[in-house]
Amino acid sequence: MTFSATDHAAMARALALARRGLESTSPNPRVGCVLLRDGRTVGEGWHQRAGEPHAEIHALQQAGADARGATAYVTLEPCSHFGRTPPCADALIEAGVSRVVAAMEDPNPLVAGRGMARLRAAGIVTEHGLLDTEARELNIGFVSRMTRGRPWLRLKAAATLDGKTALNNGVSQWITGAEARRDGHRWRARACAILTGIGTVREDDPQLTVRDIVCERQPQRILIDARLEVPAAARILQGAPILIATACEEHARMAPLLESGHQIIVLPDTNGKVALPALMRELGRLGFNEIHAEAGLKLNGSLLREGCVDELLLYFAPMLAGDTAQGLFNLPALTRLDDATQLDVTDMRTIGRDLRVIARPRR
Amino acid sequence: MTFSATDHAAMARALALARRGLESTSPNPRVGCVLLRDGRTVGEGWHQRAGEPHAEIHALQQAGADARGATAYVTLEPCSHFGRTPPCADALIEAGVSRVVAAMEDPNPLVAGRGMARLRAAGIVTEHGLLDTEARELNIGFVSRMTRGRPWLRLKAAATLDGKTALNNGVSQWITGAEARRDGHRWRARACAILTGIGTVREDDPQLTVRDIVCERQPQRILIDARLEVPAAARILQGAPILIATACEEHARMAPLLESGHQIIVLPDTNGKVALPALMRELGRLGFNEIHAEAGLKLNGSLLREGCVDELLLYFAPMLAGDTAQGLFNLPALTRLDDATQLDVTDMRTIGRDLRVIARPRR
Repeated sequence: MTFSATDHAAMARALALARRGLESTSPNPRVGCVLLRDGRTVGEGWHQRAGEPHAEIHALQQAGADARGATAYVTLEPCSHFGRTPPCADALIEAGVSRVVAAMEDPNPLVAGRGMARLRAAGIVTEHGLLDTEARELNIGFVSRMTRGRPWLRLKAAATLDGKTALNNGVSQWITGAEARRDGHRWRARACAILTGIGTVREDDPQLTVRDIVCERQPQRILIDARLEVPAAARILQGAPILIATACEEHARMAPLLESGHQIIVLPDTNGKVALPALMRELGRLGFNEIHAEAGLKLNGSLLREGCVDELLLYFAPMLAGDTAQGLFNLPALTRLDDATQLDVTDMRTIGRDLRVIARPRR
Repeated sequence: MTFSATDHAAMARALALARRGLESTSPNPRVGCVLLRDGRTVGEGWHQRAGEPHAEIHALQQAGADARGATAYVTLEPCSHFGRTPPCADALIEAGVSRVVAAMEDPNPLVAGRGMARLRAAGIVTEHGLLDTEARELNIGFVSRMTRGRPWLRLKAAATLDGKTALNNGVSQWITGAEARRDGHRWRARACAILTGIGTVREDDPQLTVRDIVCERQPQRILIDARLEVPAAARILQGAPILIATACEEHARMAPLLESGHQIIVLPDTNGKVALPALMRELGRLGFNEIHAEAGLKLNGSLLREGCVDELLLYFAPMLAGDTAQGLFNLPALTRLDDATQLDVTDMRTIGRDLRVIARPRR
């Protein structure tokens, strides 16, 4: 399949529109649509919120009668089923578009290609695969949930350049500068949920909310607390109800939390801890696309060891704390460097005075 | 002082010429010279080796009679004293140049400005301060020795992204990839000396030579070995004689090393270790400009603690080893993050699959 420069420009624009929904579409994917007729843009739209119209509908409304004979560029294959809204494929057919270009097919293997088939059956020319890598990255959590049944887990940590997250007396906050912290909040904002562990609640007592930046909805907060030890006064229990994953079924511990409106998922493993891979599947089932984890070296190590980490978002402050301070990941001792967790670095830059590295563990 | 675009271009060329001596001029600085007459380059030169002609002489020889009325661009103020060669200021005067632009004055405060004064006294127009930051950086070790009486110490270390240099069983070699190792050898090559500690000799048994790249002279090798415990079969004792800094004066331990041609400097501190700041002053006195240190977390920590580290050359391999593995710097436990060693990052890039960060401890 070859695409023209016009095709590329239109799809790039559709992707830019889709990005406007970065922090608001969950559990739906971020989708953008551009309608082009005779080289002129006649309609644009993006999906803003679950339950509201899809990108294609916004673009068709804007185009009106001009949609007839147009090419529709969509960042994701138009849906062919009745969900909370009628199928977009039908709307495109009714509007009389003559060609539909999708960046990628629906990542759900059970429905992939059906929307395009429905369009083709109506005599519309269909193509896909234009800027598909970009489209996939934009909805990496949605793709993960559809193809693997679990969210994309991005683990954020801030450390000194020698890999230390906290001093040995537990002092840890504000290692990085204001710009890096603001950047961290931007990553929190795009996630469906922010996850932490009881150790971090005890040491740092975080609110686990998005601050510093404008954010139209707060992500769900998730606490991993195997023995339900979260103090009643913990800041994470203030505000919106949270989701608590635990291995504890003691009624006396669960009752006050449930009465305060918090949700509890009981998922014990054989060691009395929370079964993390099972929790990831459960979070996928609940519709979480991207999980943003911020925890201490123990939970960080457990998540990594159990294969739950898809991406690392690491901030390094230009300072050295020395080897007695607390590190990033509690992992079993290695005897060979070949057994170290290999990473692919996908991005590296400075944020203020700090360095930011994004990397993905190799599978 | 304002300089023209022609001035800038000529000095940039002189700096490029000076860089050709990066690995060969020590203990002298790297210096380049360009002679320009009527906008035309009539002579170029750079200092190649101590004892051989300075940059100005090479350029004047190339220019011949064309030097008369030319502007000489030199990266360092021309010398006015008889060293191993006659003063360059006199040679410039005799050749009849009409203007001399120096990037920087001689960093030695006792002689700074004398070469320029000698030129001015002969009626030559003199200026300085053009690309002086670049000139200073190029000879950072020479400048350090002249102004502080000690070399510039660059500490190289390779670690995993979580700051681990070795596993807890001591396995450490080849953390980074081939490109990063070759880059490390390039930094070794420009140094006057490569320094390590007895711990690294015991664990890794390094040769501490420049390999992988073409290098016209091997840097002096320096071993810090407080109790003279270096095994007779250690690879560092093979090849050219080395310099050993120790706190031990036992004749029985010193004799075999001295008989093999190695030099020993005895500099004990009050704890029976080598007095590192005193060693730095001694290395400055011996004419070492840049020292390239590659050691383990103990000596790294001691050098840093005692204010001997001027620059960090850190390579991070895209992998995680976990918190039980060995870290970068053995430093006393901190109670406040404000007490962490603050760094200024001067360069960050990828080298092959690895990350390289250059940073300088703040004073």
